Amino acid sequence: MGRVKTPPAPSISYSITIRLEVPSGGSAVSDLTTTVERAGGVVTALDVAASGADALRIDLTCAASDTDHADVIVTALAAVEDVSVIKVSDRTFLMHLGGVIETATKHPLRNRDDLSMIYTPGVARICEAIVADKEDARRLTVKRNSVAVVSDGSAVLGLGNIGPYAALPVMEGKAALFKNFGDIDAWPLVLDTQDVDQIVETVVAVAPGFAGINLEDISAPRCFEIEARLRERLDIPVFHDDQHGTAVVVLAALRNALAVVGKELSKARIVMAGAGAAGTAVLKVLLHAGAVDVVVCDVQGVVYSAREGLDPSLQWTADHTNIEGLTGTLQEVLPGADVFIGVSAPNLLGAEDVEAMADGAIVFALANPVPEIDPAIARRHAAVVATGRSDYPNQINNVLAFPGIFRGLLDAQSHGIGTEVLLAAAEAIAGSVSREELNANYIIPSVFHHDVHVRVAAAVRAAAEKADASEHPEDADDGRHEG
Amino acid sequence: MGRVKTPPAPSISYSITIRLEVPSGGSAVSDLTTTVERAGGVVTALDVAASGADALRIDLTCAASDTDHADVIVTALAAVEDVSVIKVSDRTFLMHLGGVIETATKHPLRNRDDLSMIYTPGVARICEAIVADKEDARRLTVKRNSVAVVSDGSAVLGLGNIGPYAALPVMEGKAALFKNFGDIDAWPLVLDTQDVDQIVETVVAVAPGFAGINLEDISAPRCFEIEARLRERLDIPVFHDDQHGTAVVVLAALRNALAVVGKELSKARIVMAGAGAAGTAVLKVLLHAGAVDVVVCDVQGVVYSAREGLDPSLQWTADHTNIEGLTGTLQEVLPGADVFIGVSAPNLLGAEDVEAMADGAIVFALANPVPEIDPAIARRHAAVVATGRSDYPNQINNVLAFPGIFRGLLDAQSHGIGTEVLLAAAEAIAGSVSREELNANYIIPSVFHHDVHVRVAAAVRAAAEKADASEHPEDADDGRHEG
Repeated sequence: MGRVKTPPAPSISYSITIRLEVPSGGSAVSDLTTTVERAGGVVTALDVAASGADALRIDLTCAASDTDHADVIVTALAAVEDVSVIKVSDRTFLMHLGGVIETATKHPLRNRDDLSMIYTPGVARICEAIVADKEDARRLTVKRNSVAVVSDGSAVLGLGNIGPYAALPVMEGKAALFKNFGDIDAWPLVLDTQDVDQIVETVVAVAPGFAGINLEDISAPRCFEIEARLRERLDIPVFHDDQHGTAVVVLAALRNALAVVGKELSKARIVMAGAGAAGTAVLKVLLHAGAVDVVVCDVQGVVYSAREGLDPSLQWTADHTNIEGLTGTLQEVLPGADVFIGVSAPNLLGAEDVEAMADGAIVFALANPVPEIDPAIARRHAAVVATGRSDYPNQINNVLAFPGIFRGLLDAQSHGIGTEVLLAAAEAIAGSVSREELNANYIIPSVFHHDVHVRVAAAVRAAAEKADASEHPEDADDGRHEG
Repeated sequence: MGRVKTPPAPSISYSITIRLEVPSGGSAVSDLTTTVERAGGVVTALDVAASGADALRIDLTCAASDTDHADVIVTALAAVEDVSVIKVSDRTFLMHLGGVIETATKHPLRNRDDLSMIYTPGVARICEAIVADKEDARRLTVKRNSVAVVSDGSAVLGLGNIGPYAALPVMEGKAALFKNFGDIDAWPLVLDTQDVDQIVETVVAVAPGFAGINLEDISAPRCFEIEARLRERLDIPVFHDDQHGTAVVVLAALRNALAVVGKELSKARIVMAGAGAAGTAVLKVLLHAGAVDVVVCDVQGVVYSAREGLDPSLQWTADHTNIEGLTGTLQEVLPGADVFIGVSAPNLLGAEDVEAMADGAIVFALANPVPEIDPAIARRHAAVVATGRSDYPNQINNVLAFPGIFRGLLDAQSHGIGTEVLLAAAEAIAGSVSREELNANYIIPSVFHHDVHVRVAAAVRAAAEKADASEHPEDADDGRHEG
């Protein structure tokens, strides 16, 4: 199988700053640079922190492949004659000291007058206005723009069930992305419980101050029940990004990939690996968007109606896919398929599996951090390849979706989130890549694309307002076929 | 009795900006100012927004006494010949549009490199560090500096039980004050439940992301049980500001007031009105600080041990005060007292009641917004008078306490909050008024005093670290006499 053998390239996320003392004069500085490069690192910055007659104090910043490699580089530098290592700082850790987000006041608080309007006694009149009309809270308070990022830490990134404390850095980062890309005031709430009832009751209790709830890194199948129950209980949108954010970006990428190879969604034979949170949500959105021929596989192989021991989510999947009633393994159903979408586990496929797919095959290998197949290997036989990784083209990144989606929902003052919103978001993301720009290596914009988030927000707002007007706020979970 | 008859003075918190169109030339502008003054308002700003050959567009900002008075002023301006009122904006409402706080990212997010450190994949290493050592969350996340401002909206300011939505502006304002005076990242959590068990479970569930919990505007006696149970369950400080913030500032003011009149706390005869959240906490802190002769009254009169129907909190009060076993009314026990502290209801006392107190009487009439006695009337017979109002000298304002207290607790990474911390905070507040500055009209610094918050934080940190070292984190509730 295609196991990744080459060590990963140096990455800024393993960036360290090493403070060194070296003799002034001579080749001390270039010796440092050469040493780092010989050890496989990349020097990204070099600053003289202090300079004396005999010695220089230098801050050298470089990228390593991982923490072990960083140690190798430091050791190599320490071994250079007349060089002393004074200190090693990890840039990533430095950024996270004390967290990556903070609060801020919107108005200066310089004197009694300011205080009397921001706080007592003036604030009492704002309270009275909301007593008179509860809806005014959305205009007169932070509820206008706030989202809670909620996790119990049970399914964090590639780390698994690490609990609330260890999940907090991810939720803070998420909140930072909400602010940066969506201008949304998001605050992380990591929960000291993994009980479904307690999670639901806690979120219901804290909901009044928020305009939306983003559920994050909560394991399947609990996440389905939690999201469904919260949608029932709350009058604000509830969105599990691992499900719906992934689904939106996958749909956007697939639309563009199909355009590249000249195929139609309704005629494409799609094989999926993964029937968990992301897989189920991707499937539902694809079906809503017009996909017809879909076969889903999980760890036990093809999902089919008569298979025993299917939980409700898998049963739903079985009942809405695999028209032909196929059974067997992933390898057995993949030949002739137009599209493979993996949201499952590493190293499931090899070159020959992709070769057996139809001409103009599309392969989305989204398992994180190691995909279902090495994208370089997939690219030998597929027309279009995408992964979740930032070091290959076509990164399927949820950051393209959730900021604009919530921005649009908040601007529409929406009470829920329906499938039409997800489809609109996907169209906006796909449409951010112009016809001229579209090619096999550029099917999805970068998260830093100059206006993708604004486009998504506008499209979502329009779709949400239209849906609110026709009073069908929450139909995202029924997955009826649109054909 | 001393009922307040004069209408309140114009206040910036009832500040409006009126956009008017007036003829250019002539006395139009001075006519506007005179009109406002004749109507009892105060012009605070006048700006020409646009100027043409025939007409001027003017933005006139003025302070009214209340909203009805604001209407009177607008009507008076509209009645001026050739003047049109185009728009009226209420400055307080304008400040609260969309809330008074927001979130912010601490580092720029400009490119993939930034993203890979703030979010995936770099953030995974931060998570792993916390998995290895849970305490590292306090160093590597927002837990270093975060406080939850928690309320169920059951006892908000002078408004009573207005619920979570209407309470949110106050909690936001509180968070703004935490940031402004304590550089603390506070976020409001208004709860959609008033059930004690649910409140406790909700706060316990969300606690992992916070370094402290500030309970606010939760009615007595529920607040006592909620605080006590949370202190038992959590390893971070839990502080009900309405209780302990008030108590700290009262103690600080009392220390300085006693210095002004040359009396000692341990010898002073103290009469209190109010045995609710604030009253009970004030009592406990006074006893810890060395007060001995205290009599407490509530709506039913003097609290004494044999009185029937005392709830646990009142029973505790009865057992720790009123050594002589007095009974009767507030008026009957006040004669000869050195100190009156009211945290109760408006208009309980008259001039003759204060006159009957001892020479050099100290009167703290803290009922909000209307005190137990008009401070101007009290001042005729008392040596030192304080209220909760900003329009009289000696404002007892909790804002002097909670920012510095939490700053000190967070810097000490404290797990709880004991009485020694409250006493240290009170000393620091009292000590911010120097001997030279101290007089009957200046016993407590302004919340804008240049270093009171820093002094409080330093004193609290020292006291907390000392307490943590001797492992007695939580003895704030036993109220043992120190004498």
